[in-house]
Parts: sequence; structure tokens; C-alpha cells
Amino acid sequence: MTQFHQPISGNDLARFSGPNTFMRLPQATSLDGLDVALLGVPMDIGTSWRSGTRFGPKDIRAQSAMIRPYNMATGAAPFDHMNIADIGDLAINTFSLKESLRIVEESYEAILGTGVIPMALGGDHSITLPILRAMSRKFGPVAVVHVDAHADVNDEMFGEKETHGTVFRRAYEEGLIVADKTYQIGIRGTGYGPKDFTEAAGWGFQHFPANELWGRSLSGMGAEIRRDIGSRPVYISFDIDSLDPAFAPGTGTPEIGGLTSMQALELLRSLRGLNVVGCDLVEVSPSYDPSGNTALVAANLMYEMLCILPGGQG
Amino acid sequence: MTQFHQPISGNDLARFSGPNTFMRLPQATSLDGLDVALLGVPMDIGTSWRSGTRFGPKDIRAQSAMIRPYNMATGAAPFDHMNIADIGDLAINTFSLKESLRIVEESYEAILGTGVIPMALGGDHSITLPILRAMSRKFGPVAVVHVDAHADVNDEMFGEKETHGTVFRRAYEEGLIVADKTYQIGIRGTGYGPKDFTEAAGWGFQHFPANELWGRSLSGMGAEIRRDIGSRPVYISFDIDSLDPAFAPGTGTPEIGGLTSMQALELLRSLRGLNVVGCDLVEVSPSYDPSGNTALVAANLMYEMLCILPGGQG
Amino acid sequence: MTQFHQPISGNDLARFSGPNTFMRLPQATSLDGLDVALLGVPMDIGTSWRSGTRFGPKDIRAQSAMIRPYNMATGAAPFDHMNIADIGDLAINTFSLKESLRIVEESYEAILGTGVIPMALGGDHSITLPILRAMSRKFGPVAVVHVDAHADVNDEMFGEKETHGTVFRRAYEEGLIVADKTYQIGIRGTGYGPKDFTEAAGWGFQHFPANELWGRSLSGMGAEIRRDIGSRPVYISFDIDSLDPAFAPGTGTPEIGGLTSMQALELLRSLRGLNVVGCDLVEVSPSYDPSGNTALVAANLMYEMLCILPGGQG
Amino acid sequence: MTQFHQPISGNDLARFSGPNTFMRLPQATSLDGLDVALLGVPMDIGTSWRSGTRFGPKDIRAQSAMIRPYNMATGAAPFDHMNIADIGDLAINTFSLKESLRIVEESYEAILGTGVIPMALGGDHSITLPILRAMSRKFGPVAVVHVDAHADVNDEMFGEKETHGTVFRRAYEEGLIVADKTYQIGIRGTGYGPKDFTEAAGWGFQHFPANELWGRSLSGMGAEIRRDIGSRPVYISFDIDSLDPAFAPGTGTPEIGGLTSMQALELLRSLRGLNVVGCDLVEVSPSYDPSGNTALVAANLMYEMLCILPGGQG
Amino acid sequence: MTQFHQPISGNDLARFSGPNTFMRLPQATSLDGLDVALLGVPMDIGTSWRSGTRFGPKDIRAQSAMIRPYNMATGAAPFDHMNIADIGDLAINTFSLKESLRIVEESYEAILGTGVIPMALGGDHSITLPILRAMSRKFGPVAVVHVDAHADVNDEMFGEKETHGTVFRRAYEEGLIVADKTYQIGIRGTGYGPKDFTEAAGWGFQHFPANELWGRSLSGMGAEIRRDIGSRPVYISFDIDSLDPAFAPGTGTPEIGGLTSMQALELLRSLRGLNVVGCDLVEVSPSYDPSGNTALVAANLMYEMLCILPGGQG
Amino acid sequence: MTQFHQPISGNDLARFSGPNTFMRLPQATSLDGLDVALLGVPMDIGTSWRSGTRFGPKDIRAQSAMIRPYNMATGAAPFDHMNIADIGDLAINTFSLKESLRIVEESYEAILGTGVIPMALGGDHSITLPILRAMSRKFGPVAVVHVDAHADVNDEMFGEKETHGTVFRRAYEEGLIVADKTYQIGIRGTGYGPKDFTEAAGWGFQHFPANELWGRSLSGMGAEIRRDIGSRPVYISFDIDSLDPAFAPGTGTPEIGGLTSMQALELLRSLRGLNVVGCDLVEVSPSYDPSGNTALVAANLMYEMLCILPGGQG
Repeated sequence: MTQFHQPISGNDLARFSGPNTFMRLPQATSLDGLDVALLGVPMDIGTSWRSGTRFGPKDIRAQSAMIRPYNMATGAAPFDHMNIADIGDLAINTFSLKESLRIVEESYEAILGTGVIPMALGGDHSITLPILRAMSRKFGPVAVVHVDAHADVNDEMFGEKETHGTVFRRAYEEGLIVADKTYQIGIRGTGYGPKDFTEAAGWGFQHFPANELWGRSLSGMGAEIRRDIGSRPVYISFDIDSLDPAFAPGTGTPEIGGLTSMQALELLRSLRGLNVVGCDLVEVSPSYDPSGNTALVAANLMYEMLCILPGGQG
Repeated sequence: MTQFHQPISGNDLARFSGPNTFMRLPQATSLDGLDVALLGVPMDIGTSWRSGTRFGPKDIRAQSAMIRPYNMATGAAPFDHMNIADIGDLAINTFSLKESLRIVEESYEAILGTGVIPMALGGDHSITLPILRAMSRKFGPVAVVHVDAHADVNDEMFGEKETHGTVFRRAYEEGLIVADKTYQIGIRGTGYGPKDFTEAAGWGFQHFPANELWGRSLSGMGAEIRRDIGSRPVYISFDIDSLDPAFAPGTGTPEIGGLTSMQALELLRSLRGLNVVGCDLVEVSPSYDPSGNTALVAANLMYEMLCILPGGQG
Repeated sequence: MTQFHQPISGNDLARFSGPNTFMRLPQATSLDGLDVALLGVPMDIGTSWRSGTRFGPKDIRAQSAMIRPYNMATGAAPFDHMNIADIGDLAINTFSLKESLRIVEESYEAILGTGVIPMALGGDHSITLPILRAMSRKFGPVAVVHVDAHADVNDEMFGEKETHGTVFRRAYEEGLIVADKTYQIGIRGTGYGPKDFTEAAGWGFQHFPANELWGRSLSGMGAEIRRDIGSRPVYISFDIDSLDPAFAPGTGTPEIGGLTSMQALELLRSLRGLNVVGCDLVEVSPSYDPSGNTALVAANLMYEMLCILPGGQG
Repeated sequence: MTQFHQPISGNDLARFSGPNTFMRLPQATSLDGLDVALLGVPMDIGTSWRSGTRFGPKDIRAQSAMIRPYNMATGAAPFDHMNIADIGDLAINTFSLKESLRIVEESYEAILGTGVIPMALGGDHSITLPILRAMSRKFGPVAVVHVDAHADVNDEMFGEKETHGTVFRRAYEEGLIVADKTYQIGIRGTGYGPKDFTEAAGWGFQHFPANELWGRSLSGMGAEIRRDIGSRPVYISFDIDSLDPAFAPGTGTPEIGGLTSMQALELLRSLRGLNVVGCDLVEVSPSYDPSGNTALVAANLMYEMLCILPGGQG
Repeated sequence: MTQFHQPISGNDLARFSGPNTFMRLPQATSLDGLDVALLGVPMDIGTSWRSGTRFGPKDIRAQSAMIRPYNMATGAAPFDHMNIADIGDLAINTFSLKESLRIVEESYEAILGTGVIPMALGGDHSITLPILRAMSRKFGPVAVVHVDAHADVNDEMFGEKETHGTVFRRAYEEGLIVADKTYQIGIRGTGYGPKDFTEAAGWGFQHFPANELWGRSLSGMGAEIRRDIGSRPVYISFDIDSLDPAFAPGTGTPEIGGLTSMQALELLRSLRGLNVVGCDLVEVSPSYDPSGNTALVAANLMYEMLCILPGGQG
Repeated sequence: MTQFHQPISGNDLARFSGPNTFMRLPQATSLDGLDVALLGVPMDIGTSWRSGTRFGPKDIRAQSAMIRPYNMATGAAPFDHMNIADIGDLAINTFSLKESLRIVEESYEAILGTGVIPMALGGDHSITLPILRAMSRKFGPVAVVHVDAHADVNDEMFGEKETHGTVFRRAYEEGLIVADKTYQIGIRGTGYGPKDFTEAAGWGFQHFPANELWGRSLSGMGAEIRRDIGSRPVYISFDIDSLDPAFAPGTGTPEIGGLTSMQALELLRSLRGLNVVGCDLVEVSPSYDPSGNTALVAANLMYEMLCILPGGQG
């Protein structure tokens, strides 16, 4: 067990000390021997309202110093069963969205080539498109659990085809995902017309609007999704704005009436057993939450995703 | 359909651009041809604890830039069926509460004379008294859906009869409202004695204390209120402090144990079908919420009220 | 009735005026004639992550100016039946945790000697150990209702036996508490291994993890605890981080997925009838919540504890 | 010497403890035996832009806990030579500016009748008019050292004659002040026309615009003013917005290009020897400076004024 | 005189009311009859460190509500002599820097074609390159007064030739500016080697490093620059980070040891008489200054630039 | 030259990416081959007013990402001439001040044994005492340039001999420093009596009170100090509260009327040529400055100290 990387314990070094890696894991300079690689994609040039997600990875890592290795609620102990490291940030080009998306795609191809499971700390949601491109090249079309306030199925924004609001239309058009195994959870708010909400349903996307989930436990719904997906490779894309702004104020396009942190935990925990091939946690914009708590929520959700990876149960 | 004013689309002009009107609607300089007029009443000199609501209208408008015209959850499309504009702020006298209340009353008389439905962005809650005076002069006593942490039935505060805490006693005494069609929803907290809570019940006011609503959907309660009111003219007065401070921290007299944003949405949506003759959203104090999210909640609730106006369903 | 100390009314002196005592009660210079003494223990040198709880007492008092004497939900009127005052802060030694804990213990011995019920505004949670030492010397081992995100049963932290994370192990070892009448409510998050969570159960501690409470009313659970405790002397230790960070962002070691303010109110109200011999409200760190609302929550919970004291029902 | 009230020492009680009085002085319940009375006038209903000064007195007192009794730069030791206490806040009517000004005037009459020197913590600048009325009734027209970004000589604002922008025109018209011994220091910014700046000069007011003071020590200018005033009774009215927003961001009507904290200290120290009969420090609006430093500046300037009172040098 | 547009007076409408245009001027829908057009360029995708300048125009306008029309220090009355309006924001493409720069250039060509003087509210500094392209097409190479912490003469950043750090090298290479009439004022900080600082000097750029200006009035230096430029067309580009972070904390790439607000005012006022053909104020990032004061400084500097336009003196 | 460690360039990796080391230098795991070691001492349990300096090292490192290797003003290029790395944080015991000071002393002995020059990022000022103990054991009594608002020569605080306010009395008593080569620069504020300020002068300490430095360049004073020290080993202890709160709001015991950032730069640059054997930068408390600019100032001052190390000029 001790051959795997371990987070620095809060009893060995005060939590406000140590490297700014996820959970104070070692920063790996090579992917050799890793099962899981956490990486940052610090970008905000794909956002349409408030910016600031470029500091998301830094702040999520900072807040993750509070997390200990063992999951009290589920018994998961990911660091006992998998070799996990933080591999730092992708060197995106902060002046060009197009170029940055290319860098993400190439980097993912390299990572996936080694068999490592990549977990991305965003960054705005536009990063998910190049990730899915790389994913589908390796795994074929993947199932997607997409937790978000927004369906992100615009055709274009200001004439651009690749932004944080067009990801899942592109993914559908390019055949990167299995349309009827694409689950959009937490969507809500307003749109430009009824077609905004019905077209993707016509492709097969399964919608779980937030207002149908209010006051409900998401454990059952998660279990159904898990059964529906079966053993297919599945990608989890978690946009922090799926949560209500009370629980995650620090984000760029908040929508009221969202999920609670408790529902997010229920959902992720109920997905244990899926063949997760990658995941991301996007849209944390720290400057809108000086308490740091949005990044804390994000860090915990990332940890819960670690806990349900296929190799995480020994 | 296109003859009506439309919000500027986020695909035409970046959301952080454009006029600071509600949803980036045109700013009307005349009431001619309008069905609905949004207006600001930027005041805080009627508040008893934290001030700052004078900046409420500005910040609610700023945050409303995120809202698109079509309501995903209810299918409402208010801008397809009504001509709606922002008519700016009333020119209150920031040094005199009495004088400002007079200005509000006179302004409302003028607006109501044209048949337009006025929707006020507060400001502190003291604005609702002169509004109700003008309303009752046109419609006779109105039913009131009053969503608030506080019953606002004090007799006086520091000897003053007209403040943000005395509105509904005055309205009752002056016969502006139908007492047994007055619904106070979300009230809670502490008082000076049992009479604080029983006297208004004696007048006929119907109380829905927050603690009896915890964990419940408000859809059913809203439907009952709707049936109970029938076709009477009804005024909706929504104090943002009805929400728990977790959901709306930026307000002047917060009380813990309040409604959730989800309950607020359920309540308002279930009131569709009422003969709403006006409404307000008051007590947003932006300097206590640097994230802007309290104003975002307020803007969305205002939009939901737009969606249930009588003319809004085509 | 009027012989008892009363909070200054918001109708006599504007809420933003007056002394910075709890609810603007008189500051007592002697314990003579008091039934209940509120006191501050402004400390943060026992905290392991974010500091700042040294300003907790000041800020809780500041926010308590909003609270009126009569409890709308329960009908309690504590100031009608008990003589209650704020006795200021203990003069701790801010440079030495050990010395400060000694001062707390001695101060409590003096206070308990007079028969007064002490209610402490923390400060970090390390203050509860010396309090329990003094309590047990007077009452024998006490039952404990411990509301917290963390079990605080570490053996040591950096080799120290007395910190905010070791309180209840020490209390158990020293026989200060009745192990099987110790209720830990709201615990959650992560640990260093399964033993973190099972050992205290082996001592008899009763655990109510937060995730088993999500979406539930706590009234029933509180009633069961009340019956289980019976007439034993009981101490209530309320760590504000038991609440979810959405409801109480201003704290030092936040954990997501916590209790709501509504659940906290349900729990405390259902404990009415217990033989409460003291209580504390700890871990408010104001600099992480510039809205002041965390301290407002804390002030209200302190008030609710006042409302359930044995002498509070007349 | 020890018969006088002393601030609580930071070596006796940690600075974050103790009463929220100015410098943790005793709160006096009577004026008997006092030489100087510090008092709060918590108001903001006379402000024209950002509100929030109602919390000024509370925050200035909170930050004053850092100040020790002996003045390192000047050798002044005010607490050795005068009996000084904090007498709390005036019970203003927060809903009526007119009524509040009346209360201030009456309270000042009572205070001045005892021979005590009053020092007011504002509050917005409108409080200075009733203070000067009371002052002139006792002392005849007084000289005024008025440090401010604004001349406050408007004729009216929204038709009101008594607001924070009309104080010194009213004072001149009513003969409360000696016009040619009125020194306006730090004024700057923009106006509605040249008359804004020349009319008061015509009355005899002496203007020291900020831009003529940039980069200069104010010691010399202060000494000249001191000589010019001679032994006349003089009132000092210090508006914190005289300082540049870099030094005092937390105020309601900031103007760039202002004085530095260093200049403010030079100015006040050079006024030692004047026959100061009262002073105020106004327009601190804490919610615009979460660091608390604006109130810290204000507390220090108040202390420096204490140090130059006639009785303060033994 | 009254035929020109005037800002709404604070005596007619409370400052927290009214349109969110610069100084509450009318929003023009046409350039006809205008002498000066204020416009926003809300962008931050050209920034290399902290983002957020996309909200610069909105916040500068909001804070400009404090400014009155007449300049107390200089006697300038720009609204008496020029017809000035706010023409809103350019409709940039927030997902493409290249495309946005193209839009800025084309928009400027159109504006300059009408003879109007454009004044831009940024946005990040990358907007100045397309502006200079349009300027030089009309005026030939222009003199430039460039006030900034950074020389912005990088060759490329991440391979991109057009970002906020490469503007003035591009402008030099393309012959848009008169090299030896280019004045870089306030530059400081650190670089990658000595060439960073000497190369542009070799082109003829005149450097005024901040550390040579500390503690000095800039009036003399400004006068020398004015004489050196003579009657040439000159563009003023004012980066708010030229100021020290004490005076302008809300910016994306702050550098310590900068200019003071007072020096900025001295500099701009001393440039009166120049043939200014356009100007910008860039790099205000409001989310890093919740007090709003950075935008207030920016609004005032914009106003001072208005005051020195050729047509502004009647 | 390239054999030395270099900061990651902002052109290779976006500034918001990369390790959270000082200037994104490599984190060294051994002292071998280093000339200079930067290290964090994250502590705040020695502070007497506001806490939070435990997060100082983290935030100073975060803000240092803006700094490039070459010093524009002085031509220094420290990374060309010295091998510099960040060695992380000392593993202090956050629950015991005494124990933490012991850890600092032992760690420094080990570091000094290798010949490396240590530069400490605080943490509160109490760390300087154990550092000076280790220093004097190696170098004999050292000269000290002590830049601070406070002389830190209390005898004890709450009976404790070792806190952030007693450092230099202890250092004097223990003979760790050369008394008449101890320069205290920037001291100001208030005390408990005249002895507070004269006693240390009697020991030989040279005082440069802030008020004697206002408006002056510190270059000359620095040069005099440099000559006075000669070739003696000298330690520089820089307390960020030496700066005025306008320039460094994020600190625990701010005092108004302090140095400017410009003066701090002048002072440090003029010390070039001294035989600096170590230095520290202490008392940055990030939670009191959400803009991050206090830490930015601190990072820059640390960099300037790097630039004047004996080996730094090639």
C-alpha cells in the first residue's frame, strides 16, 4: 500500500504549509507508474459573462489541503489502491482559445496513451470539447454524465463554434459521445426559445432539470444512471454552476435554483461502479468568492470522483 | 410578436456590455404602448439596521444581464406577449423619507392612470405603503401576497409611523388591502412579545411562518393561495430577506431559517393565473454581498413575476 | 418580571448603537443575582487551518443586536424568567494555548461556584476541554450534545494533547463525560482511516453523521436524544462548522455537506426540557465572512440555547 | 494621575477583548467629573451617494483598541491630564434627518452645559450643523478648522436645507462661525460652476485646496492657522474624505487627489495650543473597507485631536 | 451653451439613480453633432495575469456618477464647449482576441471618419494597437503619451504578436507612432534582461521610469513633454497600473512603486494645449477592488482628459 | 550562468500556472549547491491583535509569480550570479509558540551550517528571535536593519517573554545583536509611556521614526546606514507594517503614518554592498487584503533583498 503516493498528512505538516498540489500530493514530472493524473487547465477566455476561472486550478488545490485520504461516508480509500499524482498545469496559450483547445487535445492524447486516467481542474467549460475528442479517439464515443446549470448546446456564440456554451452540441455532431447515454443534470434557467431545450432531447440526451430534483435525494437517480450506462466508458463533466449560488457563489455564470452540495455528493457517490475514464471539474472563479469555499466544494467533489474510479476500491 | 421590446441578446452584445436596464431592455421615456413598466426606487432611509438598499436597483439591473427571455421551467415567454420596458428610477428625495414616500405615491398614481402594470425594484420596504395607497385608489383594497422574514406590522419605530417595519399595519388601518386576503409568507425570528404575532392574525392576515415551510415544496401552498384569492386584484410584495441569508446574504435585516431560492421559485410559479396588478422586490443591499448573487436572485425573482403577469401567457 | 436584565430595545436605541454586549444586555461586573452569564473566550491559537476565531465573540455580539427578546417559533421569553447578563471576555493569554486553557478552567470553576449557568462564545473548540473539566468537577460526568463537522477525537496534533481536534478524546479519557450519553451530530468529511470513525463508537459515543441527516427534519432526532438523556446534567457544545459552508462560511475548518440553519434550529428547539448546565458556540472566524452572516447565525443559535435553559420557561 | 479614567492596557486584556468603547475607556453613564466626552452619532440619512456611516462609530471604536495612551511623536499623554470617557451614542431617529438633527442639538446643549468637551464620532457630516448651533449658543461664533474634500456650502440638496452638503453655508448664514476664521482644508474635485468655489471665499472662508498641498508638509500651514486663530474658541470638523481614497477608502463620497494620513497627522499636531472646544470625525463608512483600516485612521485622528485639547498637556 | 449634452445633475436625480453612462451623459445612438464620443471596449482576453477588465467600462461609468461638470482646480468646463456623449460599448467578440482587435479597428475608422474625438474605456491594453492603426491612417504617425507600469514592447507572448504586452513594439514596427515623440511614463518593475529596457530607447522612445519620479511634481515634466510635442496630433494611452497599487488596487498586473493619483492629475493637467486626437484609460479590473475606488480614479482621470481636449477651453 | 536555478518565465507558462514557490523557482529538497534558500515560516500564534499571518508564505509566493528575474531600476540579476531555490516551509508546531520557536532555531542552525543564506517569509515577527539566536552562534552579534512600525522591545506580553512584541529586547539582552548597529526604521504610533521609546535608545539602538521620514527619499539614510555598518554581518528584518496601511493593508497590527512602498524600495536598494547574512519579511496577513496586493508588495521587497545579497552582483 505504501508504494503509492500519499497526500501529506496534516499531522506531519501544518495544512497551511506545503506544496500547492491537489491534496498536497507529490507533483509528478512523469506519468510512469501513475494510475491517475490530476492536472490543471487554467483558462477563462472561453467564458461569456464573468471571467476569473484561470485561477480555478490554483484555488482548488489550495483548498484541497483540508481533505484527508479516507472517505468517512463511503469507506473509499483511493490512495491505498491507486497511484495518484498531480502533474501540474497544461501550458495553454492564454491569448488564443483555439490554440489552447488544440493544446488540451494534444496533451490528452499523450496522457491517454499511457493508460493514466486524467482528472482536470478547470478552467472554463470549453476545455471539455478537446478532452472528449481525445477520449473518443481512444475509447470510441463515451457516455457522459454532465452536471451543469446549462446544457451547453448552443450552435455558436458570436460566430464562434468552440466556447464554453457550445461543447455538447459539437461533441454530439462530431460523434464523440453516445447521445442516449448523455445525462444532463441540474440544467435550469432561461433560454432563447423552446427549441433550446427540446433539440438535444431529440438527439437522445437525457435531461434532469434542477427543478425536478429540488428537495429530492439524488442517490436513486444516480443508481439508475449507473445501471443505464452499464460497463461503457463514461466521462464525468462537473460544472460547479450546477450547484446553487448559495453553495458555490464563485463561478462565472451562476443560475439560481440549483443543486445543493448534499445532492452533488449523493449523485457522485451513487455512480461508484461505473467505468469512469476521465472527469473534470470546471468553472470555479475564485475572485467571486473570497471565502474560498467554492473552491473547497470543488476540491471535495474532485476527491469524491477519485473515490469512485474503477481502480479505487481495491 | 416582434413589435414588442426585446432584451438585448447575449449573442448580439456581450453580457458585460450594454445599458444597465433590467435585462437590457430599452429604457422607455414614455409609458405609451407599454403593458409593463419596470422601475427603480433607490432608497434606504427607511431601514433600521444595515443600509445600502439605495444601490439595489442598480445592482439588480446589472445582474439581470444574465437572464434570457424564455422560461425553461414554465414555458413562459413574457416578451412575446407584453410590451415591457424599464422606465428608470423615481426621483426620490434621499434626505426625507416622508417626501420620498409622497413622490412614490404620486408617481404610481400617474403610472396606474395609464393602465401599465408597475414592477418596482427597491429600495427598502417602506416604498410599499405609498404604492398600496395608489393601488387601492385605482383597484379598491387589494389582496396581498407578502413574502418576507418580517410581518412589518409595527405601530411605529422611533415615533415614526411610516418606515420599513410599519407598512402592513398602516395598509390595514387605511383599508388599502383585503385583510383576509393578505398572506404573509416566510415570517420568522424574534419579537417583543406574543402580541407581535397574534394581532395581525386577528385582523385576518394569513400567516405562513418559515419554520412551518422548512423542507416543503411551496407549490401546493401557492396553489391554495391562488384559489383563495380568485380573480381579485392582487399585489405581490417580495422582500428578499424572506430568503435565508445563505441564499440572499446581501440584505439589511437578515434572519436565519428562511426560505430557499427553490421555494421562492415554486411559490411564484404557482401563482400564475392571479390577477396581479403590481409587484415589488425590495431590500437588496448589494454592499453586503460582493459576489452580486443576492441581486442575481432578485433579478430572477423579478423575471419570474413578469412570467406570471395576466398578459404574459399569450 | 422587570427586575431582570433586558436587552436594549431596537425601538429605544437604533440597532447600530449601544454596547457591544450580547443582544445589548447590560455588561455585568459581578455574578451576583445572575442566572445565566454569557461570556467570550476570544482565542484561535488552537486552530489547525484558518485562524481568526479570536474575533468570534466580538462579531457574534455585534450581530446579536438584531435579536429581539421573544421567540416567535417557540414562545420562549428567556428574559422574562431568568436574570441574564454578558460578563465580558475571559482574559486569556493569547501566546500560550496551555496557559489559556488553565485560565478557562479556573474561570469556569469560579463561575460554576456561584450557580450561574455559563454560555461561552468562542473562540476555537479547544476551550471546551477545560470547560468540561470544571463542569465534571461540579456535576460529575455530564452528557454532551456535540454538534460539529468533526468528532474532535484525535489523540494528538503535532504532539500536542490539547487542541481543537482532541477535545472529546481527552474528555472521554479523563472521565469528564458520560460516553454513551455523548451525541456527535453532523460529523462528516474525511479522515486518516476507518479507526478515526469507529473507535469513539466503541467508547459508546452516539454518532449522527451529516449524510444520514440530509433532507430530514431534526426535530424527531432531537426528541429521542432528549428522552435518552433524561434528567442528567447535559452540556451543549455547538461548533458552527457543523453547518454547511453555505450557511456558515466564516469558520476555520469548513466541510461541505453539512447541516442547514433550519436543522440547527430544529435540533436545538427539540432539546427543550433538558437539564442544560452550560453550552458553547465555537469556531466563528469573522474574517472569512465579510457579510457578518455567520456571526448572525451563531448569535441566533446562542439565543435559541438561552431559550431552552431549564429556568427559561417560567 | 491615576484618578483619571484609563484605557484598558493591551497587556491586561487581549486587544480583541473588552468593551467596544473608544480605546476601551470606561463607558460613562454620567458626565460628572469628565473633562472630555467621546460620543457616537450613528447616522447616514444625510448622505447623498453611498450610505453606511451609521456603522462608523461602532467600527472606529473597534479599531481604536490598537491605540496606546502615550503619543510617541508628540509626547502627549492625554489620559494623564484629563478625565476622558466614552458616553455612548446619541439616540437619534434613524427615519428622520430633521428630528435627528434636533436630537443632536439638544444633546449638545446638555453636554456643553456641564463644561465637558464633546468629541463626536460620525455619522455623516450633517451632524456638524446642530453641533455648531449648540456651540455658538455657548461660545458665540466659533472659529472652524474644517478638513474635507468638499466645502459643504450648497444652498440645498433636493430642496432640503440641512444635509451633509449644506452645513457650512447654513453655519455662515446663521452666524454660528467666524467666517474669516473658517479654514477649509483639502477641498478639491468638481462642481457645478465657478461660483461653487468663489462664493464662500467672498464670505471670508479661507481655502486650502488639496492640489496646493500635494507633496507638502502641513506643519507650517497648521502653525499659521493656529496663530491666525489665536485664543478664540475653535471647533475642528474632520471629514475622513479629506484623505485620499488610498488612505481612507471606506467613505461615502470619495474624491481622488486628497491628503495623506501623514499630512493629516502633521496638520492636527501643529494645532496644539488652540482653544479647541469640540471636534468631530465624520463620514467613515465601514462597509466600503473590509480591512477596517479607514476606521483605524479615523480612530488615530480622533486620538490626535484628544492630544491637542487645551487640558491635555498638563 | 445649453445646446450641448449635459451630465444629469446630482441635484436633479440622486447619484445612485439614472443611466449607467459616463457621468450620466445621454447615450447617443448617432455620432451626428458630437465633438467627443466616450465608448467602452469591454475585454480581458488580452491579459496575462489576473482577468476581469471586461467589467472595466461598466464600473468606471458607475463610479463616474460622482463627478460634476466643472473642474475646480483648472477651471475647465468641457460640457460648456463641446458636445459630448457616451456611445456605449463596441460589440467585441469575447472569444477571439484577433477578431476583437479587428472590430476595434473598424469601429475606430468609422468614428474617426466623422471627426469625433474618441475616448475609450478599457478593457485590457491590447485595444490600443487597433486604435493606433486607425489613428495613423487618419493622422499619420501620432505622438503618444503612454502612462503605464509596463513598456508593453514585448515581441510576442506565447507566440502571439498582439496582446496587452506587445502593443508599442507593433505600433513602432508598423509606423503608427512617432518614435521620438513617444513618452513612456511610470514604467518600472522587473524584466527578462537589460535589453527589455534599452531597445525601445534605441528606437527613440523617451522613458520616464517611476523611480525617477517618486516624490516629484509631474507638472514640470508634463510641460516639457507638451512643448516637445508641439502641435502634432497626440494620442494619450493611460494604463491604470501606472499608479501604485495603493491608489489603484483593482488592476490585472499591478507593480509596486508607482505613480500617485496626485501625480497623474498633475501630469494630465499639464498637457492642456496639446492637439489630443484620442485617448484611452485601460486595465481597470473591478473584481480586485470591491470599494470601487480604482474605477473612481479611472473615471476622474478620464474626466481630466476631457478637460484638456483641444475644444474644451472655449 | 544557466547552471543556476531560474524562475519559470511568464512566456513559457502562464503566470497563473505552475508551482506555488517563490517566483516559481524550483522547490529544492536539499541545500546542496544553493547560495540562497527561501523558506516559509507560516505562523501567527505570536500575534497580539489580528491573526492570519500563517497564510503569509503561501500568499507571498502566489503573488511573486508576477516578478521577472532582472531588476529594471538597479540592473541586478540575482539569478545570474547565485543559485537560489525555495526550500518550502519549516514544519512548525501550530499549537505551541515556544516549540515553534525551538524548531525555527534548530532549522536555522542546520541551514547556516551549510553556508546558505536563508531568507524567511513570515509568519509573525516572533520568528526573528530564534533566527537571531542561530545567526549569532555562527556570526557573533550581528548588525540589524529593522524596518517596522513597532520597536518590539516590550519586556513581556501576558507574562510571555517571547512574542512578536519582545524580539529585540530579548535579542539585546542575549547579546545576539550589536546594539549600536541596530537601526529601527519606521517606528511610530503610541505607547505606554516615554520609557517605551527611550530605553532602547539608551542601549544604543538607532531610531528613525516614521514621522521624521515623511516626504523624504530614504536613499541617503540608507547609504549612511550602509557606511555605518561597514563590513559587519548584518541581518535585515522587514516587518510589512512598517509601510503605511494604504500600501500594505493586509497586516495584523497596522499603524497609520508609515513608510511608502517607494521609500521601502529606496531603503533596500541603498543597502547594496552590505554583508547581508540573512533576512526576513514578516507579518503579511492575507485575509485582511483580498486584492492580494500586500503580498505583492512583500514579494517585491523580498526580491529586492535578493538583489542586494553579497553574491548577487556577479
